[in-house]
Amino acid sequence: MRIASWHWGGRLQAGTLSADGQELTPLAVADGGTGALEIIERLARGEGLPREAGPRLPVQAVRLAAPIPQPRRNLFCAGRNYHSHAAELSTSVFAGSLPEKDAWPILFTKFPETVIGPHDTVRLPDPAITRHVDYESELAIVIGRRGRNIGRSRAMDHVFGYTILNDVSARDVQVRHQQWVLGKSFDTFCPMGPSIVTADEVDGRDVRVRGWCTPRGGSAELRQDGRTRDLIFDIPALIETCSRGITLLPGDIIATGTPAGVGMGFQPPKWLQAGDRFRIEVEGIGAIDNLFDHA
Amino acid sequence: MRIASWHWGGRLQAGTLSADGQELTPLAVADGGTGALEIIERLARGEGLPREAGPRLPVQAVRLAAPIPQPRRNLFCAGRNYHSHAAELSTSVFAGSLPEKDAWPILFTKFPETVIGPHDTVRLPDPAITRHVDYESELAIVIGRRGRNIGRSRAMDHVFGYTILNDVSARDVQVRHQQWVLGKSFDTFCPMGPSIVTADEVDGRDVRVRGWCTPRGGSAELRQDGRTRDLIFDIPALIETCSRGITLLPGDIIATGTPAGVGMGFQPPKWLQAGDRFRIEVEGIGAIDNLFDHA
Repeated sequence: MRIASWHWGGRLQAGTLSADGQELTPLAVADGGTGALEIIERLARGEGLPREAGPRLPVQAVRLAAPIPQPRRNLFCAGRNYHSHAAELSTSVFAGSLPEKDAWPILFTKFPETVIGPHDTVRLPDPAITRHVDYESELAIVIGRRGRNIGRSRAMDHVFGYTILNDVSARDVQVRHQQWVLGKSFDTFCPMGPSIVTADEVDGRDVRVRGWCTPRGGSAELRQDGRTRDLIFDIPALIETCSRGITLLPGDIIATGTPAGVGMGFQPPKWLQAGDRFRIEVEGIGAIDNLFDHA
Repeated sequence: MRIASWHWGGRLQAGTLSADGQELTPLAVADGGTGALEIIERLARGEGLPREAGPRLPVQAVRLAAPIPQPRRNLFCAGRNYHSHAAELSTSVFAGSLPEKDAWPILFTKFPETVIGPHDTVRLPDPAITRHVDYESELAIVIGRRGRNIGRSRAMDHVFGYTILNDVSARDVQVRHQQWVLGKSFDTFCPMGPSIVTADEVDGRDVRVRGWCTPRGGSAELRQDGRTRDLIFDIPALIETCSRGITLLPGDIIATGTPAGVGMGFQPPKWLQAGDRFRIEVEGIGAIDNLFDHA
């Protein structure tokens, strides 16, 4: 099953997306801006899907929102979690914190208000705030079942499904404040979608993750191409880590990290410019594609 | 004015606390667990205080909750933000990130579910998760007016009021994951209260912040004693920093950092043990006092 949220007739709807990604079926959820979150919480309580509510719609007729447009709290995000990406950072300002063998994962957060839809525009902050905006193509886990101290062996039972996100990052701001949350949390810095694909349809432990940058008037350049089987800390390890002493909740989002090929990894770096588009495709889930522009 | 939230008759109420801290007046807010947050949002919309709803109550008759028991998103927290505290860390594992002159503030977050009431029990995680639990006595700013890119000169206009919080921290976990959020976010790791005192009654830019530790059966030992005028990055600077490219919202909480005297600063360190109590008093606001115990 695929669960999505979208804008239609001046309100936010939520429901299912057909397997071919073409048709939306609205379900009866409250009109409060929580989108698919209400559906996930209902299913977590064992209440089943809400009833259908209104005519089916072609996906082209609506503006897709992020499947969870307003997460209940900050998103968990793994840092430097592909072997290939860790290697490319070994000559960067982040070299000092390269994970060693048996080290613990790096986890940071993004504020909920960073989240925008799969085709919405990312607003580049004023250059006085940041000049080094970068992309990160990522598979994101959506939690479906509450739990604390979840061991590896039970971790996959807590996965509701998967979605795609771009963990947009201001590298200069990340470094400046040492802790990364501010540089990861500028308004609109988390495009997400196009839907959540439930865990019975895709196994996030081995999917291909690709990202392309297209400059204004130019052609798409493949920048990132990895598989989640190359994660340093795999999905069960991330769930185990995030839930140690911290209760995970239905609707929580854990971004799994990004493969090699971020802009920062090039010499000289390739920062995102106004007019660039960045597209992310994850096997079995779909694609998001966002313009970067000044406010 | 002092705004508080409390448990009474099986539900969460919110309202005002008398200036002497003795009497609560419930106001008409929705029964949804948001506590004083609804009052702050109403005032931000210019709607005025809700009407009185129910009999006044002596504060001893209720269990106080945190004034904002369920923040809408993670709390902003300043790290190493008193000159005295920075100095005591210069021989610790955190020495490498000691702020230099003209450096930027360190900002990290705590998850909303860390928040507990001013007299609730902090649950120490299993020793396999952390053995190095520490206290941090802090003045916290509560935002009352939405804004982005708020300059220093306008920053105080966005302050709704102030409260007290203990930024409880697992030092071993902070270090292990490099980014601090997990070590700061174990369930119950943010006692808060006893109320929010509005900015017309107290000026947080120069108040005394003290913290005492009382071991089981022992007597109180003053551990921390500072004034917010000794902040490295003052309240306007913190608001300016947090709002750079990030929209601040009514009800957002910014913890301002802790003075010298944390457990980590002693040789050998004085970690919190089961049975310890920690009390924080902030001039003009009141006190919180919490037992630390195993789950």
